[in-house]
Amino acid sequence: MLSTHVRNGWYLGAWSDEIGRTLTRRWITDIPVCFYRLPDGSATAVEDRCPHRKYPLSLGHLDDEGTLQCDYHGYRFDGQGVCVGVAEQADRPKAALRRFPLVEKDGAIWIWPGEAGLADASLLPDTSWLTDPHWTHVHGVVPLKARHLLLVENLLDLTHETFLHPTSIGNAAVAATPIDVTVEGDRVGFSRRMIGIEAPPFYEKSCGLTSPVDRWQDGEFHPPGIFVLHIRVAATGTEEPEGFHMKVLYGMTPAHGNETHDFYALARDYLIDDEDLTEFQHKQQLAVMQEDVDALEAQELMYATDPGGTAESSIRSDLAALRGRRALAKMLAREQRGNVPV
Amino acid sequence: MLSTHVRNGWYLGAWSDEIGRTLTRRWITDIPVCFYRLPDGSATAVEDRCPHRKYPLSLGHLDDEGTLQCDYHGYRFDGQGVCVGVAEQADRPKAALRRFPLVEKDGAIWIWPGEAGLADASLLPDTSWLTDPHWTHVHGVVPLKARHLLLVENLLDLTHETFLHPTSIGNAAVAATPIDVTVEGDRVGFSRRMIGIEAPPFYEKSCGLTSPVDRWQDGEFHPPGIFVLHIRVAATGTEEPEGFHMKVLYGMTPAHGNETHDFYALARDYLIDDEDLTEFQHKQQLAVMQEDVDALEAQELMYATDPGGTAESSIRSDLAALRGRRALAKMLAREQRGNVPV
Amino acid sequence: MLSTHVRNGWYLGAWSDEIGRTLTRRWITDIPVCFYRLPDGSATAVEDRCPHRKYPLSLGHLDDEGTLQCDYHGYRFDGQGVCVGVAEQADRPKAALRRFPLVEKDGAIWIWPGEAGLADASLLPDTSWLTDPHWTHVHGVVPLKARHLLLVENLLDLTHETFLHPTSIGNAAVAATPIDVTVEGDRVGFSRRMIGIEAPPFYEKSCGLTSPVDRWQDGEFHPPGIFVLHIRVAATGTEEPEGFHMKVLYGMTPAHGNETHDFYALARDYLIDDEDLTEFQHKQQLAVMQEDVDALEAQELMYATDPGGTAESSIRSDLAALRGRRALAKMLAREQRGNVPV
Repeated sequence: MLSTHVRNGWYLGAWSDEIGRTLTRRWITDIPVCFYRLPDGSATAVEDRCPHRKYPLSLGHLDDEGTLQCDYHGYRFDGQGVCVGVAEQADRPKAALRRFPLVEKDGAIWIWPGEAGLADASLLPDTSWLTDPHWTHVHGVVPLKARHLLLVENLLDLTHETFLHPTSIGNAAVAATPIDVTVEGDRVGFSRRMIGIEAPPFYEKSCGLTSPVDRWQDGEFHPPGIFVLHIRVAATGTEEPEGFHMKVLYGMTPAHGNETHDFYALARDYLIDDEDLTEFQHKQQLAVMQEDVDALEAQELMYATDPGGTAESSIRSDLAALRGRRALAKMLAREQRGNVPV
Repeated sequence: MLSTHVRNGWYLGAWSDEIGRTLTRRWITDIPVCFYRLPDGSATAVEDRCPHRKYPLSLGHLDDEGTLQCDYHGYRFDGQGVCVGVAEQADRPKAALRRFPLVEKDGAIWIWPGEAGLADASLLPDTSWLTDPHWTHVHGVVPLKARHLLLVENLLDLTHETFLHPTSIGNAAVAATPIDVTVEGDRVGFSRRMIGIEAPPFYEKSCGLTSPVDRWQDGEFHPPGIFVLHIRVAATGTEEPEGFHMKVLYGMTPAHGNETHDFYALARDYLIDDEDLTEFQHKQQLAVMQEDVDALEAQELMYATDPGGTAESSIRSDLAALRGRRALAKMLAREQRGNVPV
Repeated sequence: MLSTHVRNGWYLGAWSDEIGRTLTRRWITDIPVCFYRLPDGSATAVEDRCPHRKYPLSLGHLDDEGTLQCDYHGYRFDGQGVCVGVAEQADRPKAALRRFPLVEKDGAIWIWPGEAGLADASLLPDTSWLTDPHWTHVHGVVPLKARHLLLVENLLDLTHETFLHPTSIGNAAVAATPIDVTVEGDRVGFSRRMIGIEAPPFYEKSCGLTSPVDRWQDGEFHPPGIFVLHIRVAATGTEEPEGFHMKVLYGMTPAHGNETHDFYALARDYLIDDEDLTEFQHKQQLAVMQEDVDALEAQELMYATDPGGTAESSIRSDLAALRGRRALAKMLAREQRGNVPV
């Protein structure tokens, strides 16, 4: 059956610190996935359906040798997902779990829910700043009851900060400043350089800046599900590399139906030992995300109840989002034609 | 996409006192509608989807000049629904809201959710008694999780009062008294004259009458969604215009799916300054409506789970309801053929 | 419309003590059924939709003569389901309720929701032990939000006791002991003889046995919805008929959609006056069923979200369940071709 989600691509499946020697279920692109770690510490992800009678493996047991047992009829699987036996008979059933390509790096576990042979770790963006000792970050995941595309478009058009986040990261300068858009293959980038503007409240408090400031937003969408935002704020006229740098990683991972996992990491390269600042930034990040979640869930209802699809009006600031939408549509079409990259 | 609801017709959209300078969403025939008032006090209703990215306008802002702003990306619309600008660019997007014909009179706001060119205010029934100084009334709206047709049929066959409302407005005389039915174009009327009957409890208490009484019910269905009931009760033999008169207006407005707004107004022409009586009548009205809501929701489940549709048995007292059902079916068929009245 | 449930077969509709002179609704194979008793005490079951406007009859009234009145518009039906009149007119509407074949015996009411002409009481299994004075039993019904087939397969493959019920009725011996399977027409039987095994906790406490014991499980599936399990436990080497005997009846009755009524009766032939033992066994039975309900509901989600249907791996212990699945599929196909037994 065709999924409406692109599956041939990397998605953030879990933060490293979420997965251990217990069994964790998470839906990824309509597939129930069971995450766990083998005795050597490596992360593993398998389809959460026993090949015998589809019972969730995440309700089973993992032993010290890394053998996973289904707790309905006792099928047992080794770390490669191969069935190694059942109590009911001496001979081993010919059965294996579907096991998903994973890459774990910089504290994140990336999963490729589509055709395993196409998984290419070089497609992952640089996330070394998550573990760079000159940076510090917070991270987590927020549930979102809205389709993945709406989150992608939210992040590719940050002019919404002006209207949706006016008490924190948004002000008039964001919507008033046009973006430059670049497309390289499937990737979409945009750049917004706000020069000599009023400092939004979050940056005022976060960096101790007073207006006027320069504020840079450089976004990268790695479709289907990764967004990285490079931020720089500084007193107007300060030369690079001086100033305050921040980075935000969003893992936009389709869950089930029109629900999405909204993974985030927010990092900075200044006052990295200031725990009060870290706590303040984390609270602000979650408050901003809640504003987005509320808006996207309201928007989701308007799309879900308008299947005929009235035409949409677009403006120049939509360019990156439209390019992102097109990239996703192309990936999905390619996938449904048989996964041949064109 | 075809709706299962007739849209070319007047529906009660809101009571006048529900709509002000704030934004109010209400679903009407599967369309999300945003109601508000312009600075001149006139009521306005637009589709509650911004033409940009469908975000609900009812979550936006209305300024003192009557400009409505979408709070996701800032599209702004004047009182005619025309986009007057966005912060993102100097030139104005070519976009307009879908705006619905409204008629506000006698404290009610009527909406025509279909083709605007067909809206004809002369189709509205007389409701002058809602504001006539010799009458007083109460009004409100009750949510109903049942399809519109079941409410229409409920009101067009009041024999159910005998069985469903035996402690208030119903007694054996209702079911035992046949009706006269008249059809004029799409309109369906019925008349039930109960002469020399026992007074039902509600009229006993409401009018201080003792049996025997005469009780008249004259109903008018203005399809798709308006029902007016003219009631007269009097000691048996009293000549018109003596006796107690009441009128009930029902606005039966399809909301979303199989849910319906059940608007009501109950008026009387006697003891109009007796607030205790008003309160008593309002409580009784709501109690009777709750009995109907419970019954219609139970009935809805029986229709929803019987899509094959077993044949129905009908009796003579169903005649008005069957005529109403036919009128609605004809309107819907006409609408789906292209709105040409035949 | 075709149902996904076999309807030409006996299902447990209710325990005798559940049905009286009040009206009880229960969904059976997607049909709302209204159960009640006539003045002579006989149980009756009719479709819970009034033929007039589908209003639930279970919300109506039953009078002392056994006349059932719909409380929406007053249709009245005699004990045969024939309409005997309405208050609205002198002549009787030609209408009748759909009435289902019932057999009441041994404290259970069996219903045949399909074609009445095919109902054959001789297809019912022997349940005389439910009322045999040398036996005692407990019974009840548990709601299950999982499709009927999953419950059938659960009971036809008791190796799951080892994994799902390890603290009560399961231990390693169950999964380790193969079954013999017999098929007679549509009926499927299996037999598991565990000899010289460790006593599972439930039988230790219930019978005062110490290991080693012999444990017999003889199951009979009478499709579509009846399962009888004959149990014998005894100190190893004890000859029949010595030892402890128990019987379990499961009525697996499709309710609505993928929900199922899970009826049970648990009986024993020893210490039949020991009420503490009865209470202990009832608690254990319900605890075991709750483990099954939790597992089957988790499994249901995995089937419901996998409509494409990945192929299943099977082992020898699945044989009875596979035969049961095949019997159900054949019955359904036969029914959809026109109920001609082949």
